[in-house]
Amino acid sequence: MVEYTGCAASALDDLKRIEQLMNQAVRAAGATVVASVFQPFEPHGVSGVVVIEESHISIHTWPEHGYAAVDFYTCGQADPEVANALLQAGLGATHTESMYVDRGLGVPGRNLRLRSHRADSLVVPEGVLVTEQVAEEPSVLAN
Amino acid sequence: MVEYTGCAASALDDLKRIEQLMNQAVRAAGATVVASVFQPFEPHGVSGVVVIEESHISIHTWPEHGYAAVDFYTCGQADPEVANALLQAGLGATHTESMYVDRGLGVPGRNLRLRSHRADSLVVPEGVLVTEQVAEEPSVLAN
Repeated sequence: MVEYTGCAASALDDLKRIEQLMNQAVRAAGATVVASVFQPFEPHGVSGVVVIEESHISIHTWPEHGYAAVDFYTCGQADPEVANALLQAGLGATHTESMYVDRGLGVPGRNLRLRSHRADSLVVPEGVLVTEQVAEEPSVLAN
Repeated sequence: MVEYTGCAASALDDLKRIEQLMNQAVRAAGATVVASVFQPFEPHGVSGVVVIEESHISIHTWPEHGYAAVDFYTCGQADPEVANALLQAGLGATHTESMYVDRGLGVPGRNLRLRSHRADSLVVPEGVLVTEQVAEEPSVLAN
């Protein structure tokens, strides 16, 4: 799951551009498009989902807040970090925040695991990427 | 995010049934369908996404493992717990595990928050629902 903030409002409200960007991100990640749906939001924004052979990638945008939320649900060899980098650039995000959650670990009650939670500031005077690990789940115990 | 395990394999491999169930769950939750895509997985399973006015609900099923992964991405008044209960019953799940993540909290670096992580065993001798809170994120700090 990735949150993009500080994005250009015009980019977030351009349905065709968002659709192109998402498809480009899917291909760059090494995933294969199966089907996709992109719809305008009222009064602003876009909702879109690309179903891929490796599961799906979704986007919801709020141009009025310069904000977009993207989920990369992948399995196999697809690399969500490549798609993430492409979307960051394409949306003109100044900050991103991402949470990795493992799914389907195969043990009832321990199927889900928060692997990492990270915030990246992309706007610093020196032009250096600042990454900070913001939290991790302490332990997952279940019945 | 919800994980359903111990499901009936036949239910997880029936594309039409999954599509009906997902649409039923969306309506029961008080959400409004905008568009949907459902595709068979090879060699087994189904991938489907319903784009709703309140964002989206997705499903991926692995009949060979009796396992389905569902994401409820909602905003507004839609109630994901209602959809969850309906899917549990419809898929015949014996266990569910769910993680609530808040999105778009509006502060760069603190946009995401793991609210809860819970495992439910639906098969106990007395027929009593057993719920256990399995973990929470300790604190979210960012740049």
